[in-house]
Amino acid sequence: MKAHCTRPTTAVASATPMQPDSLQALAALRGHFPQLAPGEVWLVGAGPGDPGLLTLDALSGLLQADLVVHDALVDARILALVREGACVQLAGKRGGKPSSTQADISARLVQSARRGLRVVRLKGGDPFVFGRGGEEILTLAAAGIPFRVIPGVTAGLGGLAAACIPATVRGVNQAIILATGHAADEAGGIDWPAVARTRQPLVLYMALRNLDSIVGALRRGGLPPDTPAAVIASATLETQQVVVSTLEKVASDARDARITAPAIVVIGDIVRTRQELLAICPRVSRKDFECAES
Amino acid sequence: MKAHCTRPTTAVASATPMQPDSLQALAALRGHFPQLAPGEVWLVGAGPGDPGLLTLDALSGLLQADLVVHDALVDARILALVREGACVQLAGKRGGKPSSTQADISARLVQSARRGLRVVRLKGGDPFVFGRGGEEILTLAAAGIPFRVIPGVTAGLGGLAAACIPATVRGVNQAIILATGHAADEAGGIDWPAVARTRQPLVLYMALRNLDSIVGALRRGGLPPDTPAAVIASATLETQQVVVSTLEKVASDARDARITAPAIVVIGDIVRTRQELLAICPRVSRKDFECAES
Repeated sequence: MKAHCTRPTTAVASATPMQPDSLQALAALRGHFPQLAPGEVWLVGAGPGDPGLLTLDALSGLLQADLVVHDALVDARILALVREGACVQLAGKRGGKPSSTQADISARLVQSARRGLRVVRLKGGDPFVFGRGGEEILTLAAAGIPFRVIPGVTAGLGGLAAACIPATVRGVNQAIILATGHAADEAGGIDWPAVARTRQPLVLYMALRNLDSIVGALRRGGLPPDTPAAVIASATLETQQVVVSTLEKVASDARDARITAPAIVVIGDIVRTRQELLAICPRVSRKDFECAES
Repeated sequence: MKAHCTRPTTAVASATPMQPDSLQALAALRGHFPQLAPGEVWLVGAGPGDPGLLTLDALSGLLQADLVVHDALVDARILALVREGACVQLAGKRGGKPSSTQADISARLVQSARRGLRVVRLKGGDPFVFGRGGEEILTLAAAGIPFRVIPGVTAGLGGLAAACIPATVRGVNQAIILATGHAADEAGGIDWPAVARTRQPLVLYMALRNLDSIVGALRRGGLPPDTPAAVIASATLETQQVVVSTLEKVASDARDARITAPAIVVIGDIVRTRQELLAICPRVSRKDFECAES
């Protein structure tokens, strides 16, 4: 059964075309190749952006799906991996009309599975890290739809790696806190002073808009103003930007550098590793550190 | 230039043999195929265990490497993906003699790169999350060796997904704390009561040995004894075991279930999602939830 829609050609026109034998090629690469069955839904993490950070299971899902329902942040080169003839839909909009409620998306997944489609729900990063994947699987379960969750590299950790900032450094930290800055002003949100008092580094997702108020709350929790901080925008993509700063100045430095979403913010002494590397290595590209022979 | 050693056949004998054209097949799957150059080192995350959770870049590194230096936790099926003729070495041991210092491993990476080998340093999970990758890249940088970091799915988050426990649930938590339980007794470790006071869920790596004392410290921080908790052993593998419990009982329940390392422990209300799913879905396998039609 085919999906009754066509692929959005504009989004993928510039990306690499799929090879016809790619499914076979992937199967040859792996002993156990999970089957996406008709009527089944896979919640798949697309990773932080770079298609090279897709998992093999994520790719196998994209190669088998009849319908891919994706979030806005998924890279066009990843959507280009979907097989010819499959339907690719942006979640939250349908036929040009905004329709962004989570209930609508979950209902679409259920209806598509009931029509016998092989469905991939593709989310940026990991589907269970600030991705509302939990709500979707509960809806699928209640509807009797079989599902599978394929974790992905979460943007916070993959983005740190792309900036050569280790999430943990021996002797520096024993924990890393991943937090959303999106709901900073809402009731029932994060107790930022309590987070500061753990003395462990913090990675903020979706935090640009509320960064001033989050920084203020962290400082009220006793975090020193000269704590190292960095902003990583478009992490892992060709357009990646890294701004290194301090807690005190990170919000204004991000504005001065005209950083826009998507971006993660990292606050803590782990940021120093990047500075140590840059002191050693004069040449650095987005992904490779090339250190001149001394 | 070939590595002067042979592959450890015992570890990979039962795994799937590589196809001779797999590198070509992978290249066909991807528009941009990063090259691992002679004299270069890639720090690669192998993910939580299941080979399907390898990233494409990780696989491409394994297919190109002359030498793979891996940690003990990397699955034999992943090591079997290394190309014929390449050398696979377990870090921490050499020629049967224990030699586990981090300095030794870093020195081996530098020496191998200087001999012109294409080197992959393969770590379980993500190389920058409790993996000491930061120390290794600083050593490589100081030696003038070009390197690249390939992030992987960290065991804590991938393990939660495999147990159908979302790392974040809307209305429940706005952050997730990843912490090592390995160094619980050491000076300068984690302030567990402060962690408890954030009221955000906690994922513990390598925590079985110190679980009683960590639980005690979290309770001193005010975390209620009936807080949901779970232990996930051998996450994402066929041998995965999940024990759902409470903060008060999780250490004894893990002992009663004869849970052994590797295991992660998750503490917080996010664990309830798994219980909600099990109430709906009578059948659950390691990866798939199949819900009977009502």
